[in-house]
Amino acid sequence: MSQSRTPVMDALIDFVLGLEAAALSAPVIEAASRSMTDWMGTAIRGAAEPLADALAAVTRAAGGDPQATVLGRRTRTSALFAALANGAQSHALDFDDTHLPSIVHGSAPVAPVVLALGEWRHASGADALAAFVAGFEVETRIGRVLGRRLADRGWHVTGVLGHFGAAAAAGKLLGLDPGRLAHALGIAGTQAAGLEQSFGTMSKPLHPGKAAMNGLLAALLAREGFTGSTAMLDGAHGLPATFLGVTDLSAAVQDLGKRWEILDNSTKPYAACHLTHATIDAARAVRGRLGTETRDVESVRCHVHPLVLEVANQVAPRTGLEAKFSVSFCAALGLVRGEAGEGEFTDASLSDGALAHVMARVTPEADASLGVASARMTVRLAGGGVIEEHVAAARGTAENPLAREELEAKFRRLAEVVLPTDRVDRLVAALRRVGDLDDVAELAALAAG
Amino acid sequence: MSQSRTPVMDALIDFVLGLEAAALSAPVIEAASRSMTDWMGTAIRGAAEPLADALAAVTRAAGGDPQATVLGRRTRTSALFAALANGAQSHALDFDDTHLPSIVHGSAPVAPVVLALGEWRHASGADALAAFVAGFEVETRIGRVLGRRLADRGWHVTGVLGHFGAAAAAGKLLGLDPGRLAHALGIAGTQAAGLEQSFGTMSKPLHPGKAAMNGLLAALLAREGFTGSTAMLDGAHGLPATFLGVTDLSAAVQDLGKRWEILDNSTKPYAACHLTHATIDAARAVRGRLGTETRDVESVRCHVHPLVLEVANQVAPRTGLEAKFSVSFCAALGLVRGEAGEGEFTDASLSDGALAHVMARVTPEADASLGVASARMTVRLAGGGVIEEHVAAARGTAENPLAREELEAKFRRLAEVVLPTDRVDRLVAALRRVGDLDDVAELAALAAG
Repeated sequence: MSQSRTPVMDALIDFVLGLEAAALSAPVIEAASRSMTDWMGTAIRGAAEPLADALAAVTRAAGGDPQATVLGRRTRTSALFAALANGAQSHALDFDDTHLPSIVHGSAPVAPVVLALGEWRHASGADALAAFVAGFEVETRIGRVLGRRLADRGWHVTGVLGHFGAAAAAGKLLGLDPGRLAHALGIAGTQAAGLEQSFGTMSKPLHPGKAAMNGLLAALLAREGFTGSTAMLDGAHGLPATFLGVTDLSAAVQDLGKRWEILDNSTKPYAACHLTHATIDAARAVRGRLGTETRDVESVRCHVHPLVLEVANQVAPRTGLEAKFSVSFCAALGLVRGEAGEGEFTDASLSDGALAHVMARVTPEADASLGVASARMTVRLAGGGVIEEHVAAARGTAENPLAREELEAKFRRLAEVVLPTDRVDRLVAALRRVGDLDDVAELAALAAG
Repeated sequence: MSQSRTPVMDALIDFVLGLEAAALSAPVIEAASRSMTDWMGTAIRGAAEPLADALAAVTRAAGGDPQATVLGRRTRTSALFAALANGAQSHALDFDDTHLPSIVHGSAPVAPVVLALGEWRHASGADALAAFVAGFEVETRIGRVLGRRLADRGWHVTGVLGHFGAAAAAGKLLGLDPGRLAHALGIAGTQAAGLEQSFGTMSKPLHPGKAAMNGLLAALLAREGFTGSTAMLDGAHGLPATFLGVTDLSAAVQDLGKRWEILDNSTKPYAACHLTHATIDAARAVRGRLGTETRDVESVRCHVHPLVLEVANQVAPRTGLEAKFSVSFCAALGLVRGEAGEGEFTDASLSDGALAHVMARVTPEADASLGVASARMTVRLAGGGVIEEHVAAARGTAENPLAREELEAKFRRLAEVVLPTDRVDRLVAALRRVGDLDDVAELAALAAG
């Protein structure tokens, strides 16, 4: 195999190593701070999920130097295992951020690496923030080219491409030179994995955890002189070629350092698949006009982008997790309750007669003219009335962002399940000025269980 | 995604959990003992390679309970990291065994798991042998259906399918019940990775190391109740479907427990790609008739299976590693030196004028009527003479196996680079009766550096 470095590899490496927090614009810094805050809330909350117990049992048995904190738990372990656990915990509720243009959950593979390595090596907030942005940009830029195609073939985009983001962030924090960073990206790419077949099991959140751990391993190995393919991105048998038959990745490096993918990141206000959010917004708007008399609902037509029906069309969800991937359930939830927080996606909700009544009347329909974050809803009532709503951009998207206070309220709600209020307060404050922290270990100490 | 267990998953699980060393035939036990011996020699020898230093540095920094030995080194670490290191070390020289019908290097992902977990939990030799055979059969049976197709698409078959073998072996040694073993195979499959783009770099041997570690992680997690897709093998979005569009794996479970893939395992007598071996045999046979007067060689036509030219047709190798994947170099080596051991694939050989003289006269040609382990060679001499040789089955294949003494001589040659002779002697003796050992930790102790 030819291992010559390619223009795309070179451009990404120059970008990653050249990026400095001091040179970032205020909106990019704010987007990074918001993304890290939202990620940390989901990772802390994930500590209370069964998945976290299993990971803790396995990593505790393996042992390791106490380099990094498992968020929301009492464990400190090696940076590799902490990255694994925190990446998985943050995706356990499917409540973390989504970069919609690439369908990458951007923070879940990268932030655990930045936090674990940052704590271990006492990185400054500025260095951590720069590494986070670098990793986020790398995976989402590649994802803009490959994301939809990977998903169409059955790959979990976050799992696969997260490997590159994690390796880039780790390589930057470790101070790798360009040659070794190229090897790190090669070693990361050859480990890249994650199948949609795992959706609905704990292995889905395992994917970003493994991407974080594998990407960190790649960078640590490359630092020791371990070699990988430096043509992994657009070599004849590189990842895009083997997974998809794609070898032209030039679009991924256009306007590097000028256009920022992180400004397109979305935050979930609802504890469901991001692709259901516009429908929930539409349903809540209908409810605002209809009131609580949902027994009169005769039919609910939900028009959504075709991708929504590929990913989130569970017609008869049997578990809370499946309900998060059910446009019909989400539409009913918005109409009947006007809420779609963590507490709504439960077995109890699945046996709620009022919800079932409405859900049975919902018909999702694909409409390719809509964006993935848009929805149109038509509700017909028994008395002959019709209510229509159109949502151009779901709440939490870049076009319709949550206010910082809303995002922090979500953080508090999640983190307070696991941590005492005073620590949550201090975390909120520290995350507001994450780029100014002397040592990101401060964040980890506050988030320990 | 539907997670219903499928007939293929069920059949493999029944087979893995039902397999007992006491019920295995003498030829299967001997094949397992030979495979483990050959694997252990390559893993011990690999301890002296730069790749092992890099892995040791990273795992030493991470720390871990001293559960298992890194072969040929002074390190004991967690079973997870030991499996990683030993799997990578054993493939470092491309000198480990090959199951040709599946193109899986069968021992490299499985034996490290059996040894690490066996040492940690003080498994008996009988249990270790049964787990080894179970893992070997699982990955090579799946490989019989998918192997060639995976390789054609750019996947490293050993890296990808080794995950299933490693998880099966680990699950059996851990005593998982059928339900948890199904989850383990699902968790393993969603981590499966390894690209041919990495060939020629240290990431190639990393693949079986990662397969071993990931498969072990899958089984350890499943034991704690972690879930994966139990339809990973033939679900609509399972590994074969996503990687290749294949959903029918029924051929993989035909004659389970009656036909044994391990009886088809091949041992490399030469330190090169297995697909060059028949050509080396042919060249050595020509040399036996021609003598050492290779200056008279005017042309050498090598007829080989087309796959050989896909994988091993480096026309101008620049390193010893590339030379291992060069039919032309290997043909010249057999003609000029009559040897193809580790010591021949060096930079010095690449600048040997006599070798270069012959190599420049070699023409490899594809012939689909030949088997992958066959070759035909026609050598024309300056004086007009022609020497022809046909090799039906290369030395080291199941049809033309090495004598146990030859296999053990290879083991000694490799292991003595790293270990003192008396320990190598004791290892040879212990591996002859591996199925009767009280505790496989004995093997690990003898193989520690």
